[in-house]
Amino acid sequence: MTNRTYREVHLAARPKGPVTDDLFTIVEVPLPEPGPGQVLVRTTHMGVAAVMRTLMDETSAVPMPSYEIGAPLHGAAVGEVVAAPGSDLRPGDLVEHRLGWREYALLDAAQVQRLDPDLLPDPAAYLSQGPTALMGVARGAEVRPGDTVFVTGAAGGVGSLAGQIARQFGAARVIGSTGSQQKADRLVEEFGYDAAVIRGAGPIGEQLRRAAPEGIDAVFDNVGGEQLQAALALANRGARVAIVGALASQLSDGGPALTPVDTLSLLAHSVTLRGVALYDHLDLVPEWNRRFAEGLRDGSLTFPHSRLHGIEQAPRALRELTEGRHLGAVIVEL
Amino acid sequence: MTNRTYREVHLAARPKGPVTDDLFTIVEVPLPEPGPGQVLVRTTHMGVAAVMRTLMDETSAVPMPSYEIGAPLHGAAVGEVVAAPGSDLRPGDLVEHRLGWREYALLDAAQVQRLDPDLLPDPAAYLSQGPTALMGVARGAEVRPGDTVFVTGAAGGVGSLAGQIARQFGAARVIGSTGSQQKADRLVEEFGYDAAVIRGAGPIGEQLRRAAPEGIDAVFDNVGGEQLQAALALANRGARVAIVGALASQLSDGGPALTPVDTLSLLAHSVTLRGVALYDHLDLVPEWNRRFAEGLRDGSLTFPHSRLHGIEQAPRALRELTEGRHLGAVIVEL
Repeated sequence: MTNRTYREVHLAARPKGPVTDDLFTIVEVPLPEPGPGQVLVRTTHMGVAAVMRTLMDETSAVPMPSYEIGAPLHGAAVGEVVAAPGSDLRPGDLVEHRLGWREYALLDAAQVQRLDPDLLPDPAAYLSQGPTALMGVARGAEVRPGDTVFVTGAAGGVGSLAGQIARQFGAARVIGSTGSQQKADRLVEEFGYDAAVIRGAGPIGEQLRRAAPEGIDAVFDNVGGEQLQAALALANRGARVAIVGALASQLSDGGPALTPVDTLSLLAHSVTLRGVALYDHLDLVPEWNRRFAEGLRDGSLTFPHSRLHGIEQAPRALRELTEGRHLGAVIVEL
Repeated sequence: MTNRTYREVHLAARPKGPVTDDLFTIVEVPLPEPGPGQVLVRTTHMGVAAVMRTLMDETSAVPMPSYEIGAPLHGAAVGEVVAAPGSDLRPGDLVEHRLGWREYALLDAAQVQRLDPDLLPDPAAYLSQGPTALMGVARGAEVRPGDTVFVTGAAGGVGSLAGQIARQFGAARVIGSTGSQQKADRLVEEFGYDAAVIRGAGPIGEQLRRAAPEGIDAVFDNVGGEQLQAALALANRGARVAIVGALASQLSDGGPALTPVDTLSLLAHSVTLRGVALYDHLDLVPEWNRRFAEGLRDGSLTFPHSRLHGIEQAPRALRELTEGRHLGAVIVEL
């Protein structure tokens, strides 16, 4: 196969403002031959996530390597084994890898994770952000039966599952924030939210007070900034706040969006803010996949996502994600 | 005893700025007679604490009743039983009550807590803020062997014990913040701190970076504001931050001192901020008293405090506490 080529998406330049398609280039490269102990994977699905915008910056608060100019964007992807000489992987096996936006990936066999094609029949479902959502609900916000829960960024890949999971954990009332009336309607009609507050439709604090007249017990925060501040102002005694994302910082052009926190109020109400990141909770990945399979089968969970087709759509997918144009996860299928 | 009188300290006016002595009046009132099931206590020691400044405001974030104008200031006090008809308390018994700044207190017998005069031979030691310090170290900041710990407000009644307790919990390095070189010297020479940073002596962030070149694992925060912000900027992965006080808010004249928090950094470093208040951890009061007695006996703990004499000194004691003039707890002995 040495004369054949495949395509990768490379970072062409670092963003100085909003994400634009010209920050990326599609590059044709020779298809490599796997040596002993290596595996060649044909990528079938690539994940698109807000953290990818963060990693386009030269330095970030996230303890992961930033993307390099002229190199492909790493990230979660699913594919099929093409060849894996000297390993127990077989051609056709479904696997996950972290090499991201490329039609083929060459890895050490230990770097790929074999997936069960029967557990989640749609391979794209292995790219859901459910593990992060489960982590935030179970270990960050510690959602308990009867809680009023507020999820910021509720229409995103994480938030659109977090509300459903909070419901499974017994939440009495689940409120989400999002950026448009249209998304707010879908949160309530399709994704198990009881109410939604809308960024840009009047003060979030007032909207939230109307949506949560008895205060908030658990917060699943993907956003930070004024939405988190509004949630803290309504925190009930003993409230738990999971910091799972920081979209107000990650998608802004001017450095971190700081949240002004009144620590006397945290103290007075015994409130806990807990930053949680999936690399500390990787045991939840298989647990989520089992839970997701069961929930999809019995109808208690849905997989909100947008699916774009062709590797050349990946830059657009990330740009549209940062623009808030999608509801749920964003997947590029090859 | 119906013709006799005693003195109470009343709130005369609410502060509009710094605490001044004319916000209080000393009032002479008739000494009551205890009825069946009641206990009359002669107060021997009264506590003085920053929360009393907070409760002088008409409303506060603290879920305790604010002081009323023309009424005595409630708070922790120790005394001896004078009479307790129909209860198992005996004249001369050492007890604690919460009625605060008055020479005598009439309470239902169930409202007083009998103290062991042999456990802590100095009754003033029962007014230490050790339970709060222990709570913050053990349950808020979860100090572990080897930790670098930063205590803000380290020279106060809570902080002067928190450093010593952190050392008992195995902290490898304990750094405190305070308001003067003189107090900083005493923190290091007398109270088990390895280093001190000084408010007003240059940027706290730079001082702290020099004092904690390997970052901070646990924070015991009494202050909030820029000191907390500096600590968060140096937080190591998995750091725990106990919010135990908010002196920057409580002692300021202009409402809460908000701390700008970069939630992306909390997430990236898996940092937890936990507001902890003693009313959720009252089981630590007897545990602390036992630990304190043992530590005072074997010399592993000291009781830093200032002692003023006479109820008429109480207003001055609180004013001087808000001015940062004392090191350790402030006790008024009658």
